[in-house]
Amino acid sequence: MTKEEALELLCSRRTVRHFDGRPVGPELLDGLMEAARWAPSGMNNQPWRFIPIEGRDTLEKLSVCTKYGKLVRSSPAAIAVFLDNEAVYNRTKDVQSVGAALENLLLCAHLQGLGACWLGEILNKREEAEKVLGVDKSMELMALVLVGWPKPGAHEGDRDRADLASLVIGKF
Amino acid sequence: MTKEEALELLCSRRTVRHFDGRPVGPELLDGLMEAARWAPSGMNNQPWRFIPIEGRDTLEKLSVCTKYGKLVRSSPAAIAVFLDNEAVYNRTKDVQSVGAALENLLLCAHLQGLGACWLGEILNKREEAEKVLGVDKSMELMALVLVGWPKPGAHEGDRDRADLASLVIGKF
Repeated sequence: MTKEEALELLCSRRTVRHFDGRPVGPELLDGLMEAARWAPSGMNNQPWRFIPIEGRDTLEKLSVCTKYGKLVRSSPAAIAVFLDNEAVYNRTKDVQSVGAALENLLLCAHLQGLGACWLGEILNKREEAEKVLGVDKSMELMALVLVGWPKPGAHEGDRDRADLASLVIGKF
Repeated sequence: MTKEEALELLCSRRTVRHFDGRPVGPELLDGLMEAARWAPSGMNNQPWRFIPIEGRDTLEKLSVCTKYGKLVRSSPAAIAVFLDNEAVYNRTKDVQSVGAALENLLLCAHLQGLGACWLGEILNKREEAEKVLGVDKSMELMALVLVGWPKPGAHEGDRDRADLASLVIGKF
């Protein structure tokens, strides 16, 4: 496809925080994790792990682990994304790879018309959230991605980006 | 688009290490950085910075900073991606964001038929590479992405991925 078409697909993604309440279902959640697992990783070590969540009880418990609890409670589904420290070979590179997997997941939602919100603030109560999810101690929560169908007409307070020129710090 | 179409777009990306020698040009490199800058970041802090490189002299100097020097020398272009430590508010989250920006960059190349190779190994000689690029000390090299037009018929030794089932460590 052309450069313009590629940019339209990739740059039209935005965080969605308001959902219409319809369930997402395991099949679509599987698709999002499927996209995530095809991200690149150093030495192909694939350090990411996932927990899909649609149980209201678990979302309620997770909502207590973040100041954005209202958001978590109003989400029909979520995917918790972890770094498996037993798979790590270089923390900086592996955390980057998890970020790449998260972006694949968010883009996969966007391309299907699903909305998603990358919640990182929950890391402030990471150990509490990990306890709710009952994971092994090698698993380090990296993010909770909230997923749902966008609420029509909701104002998402879209954020702008810095000009490319201000981000390019040299040229050779 | 459907789930299948979204997965086809996102999961068909692979590392490309063999290029046909044609130049890429500043316009396409700008497009790749444009895609990268629309990645999400915590607090929208956009901690990524870029240096596009097409100068043979600089690629030659960078090739000495990695055991994959031959790859660097055979690439028509590259984009060095940095974390600006002066923009960082939470290292783990910010390094994830740089990974998300890298994935946007790689996907933008893929969607246009360009090939790209995320080179992380150069971090072993990060300070030498940073010196070649003459960056401020707040700038931490995260990756060098090699970019070019794929060489037809080259064997890229595509790597498989672990089954999704083995990556899902729970379900609620």
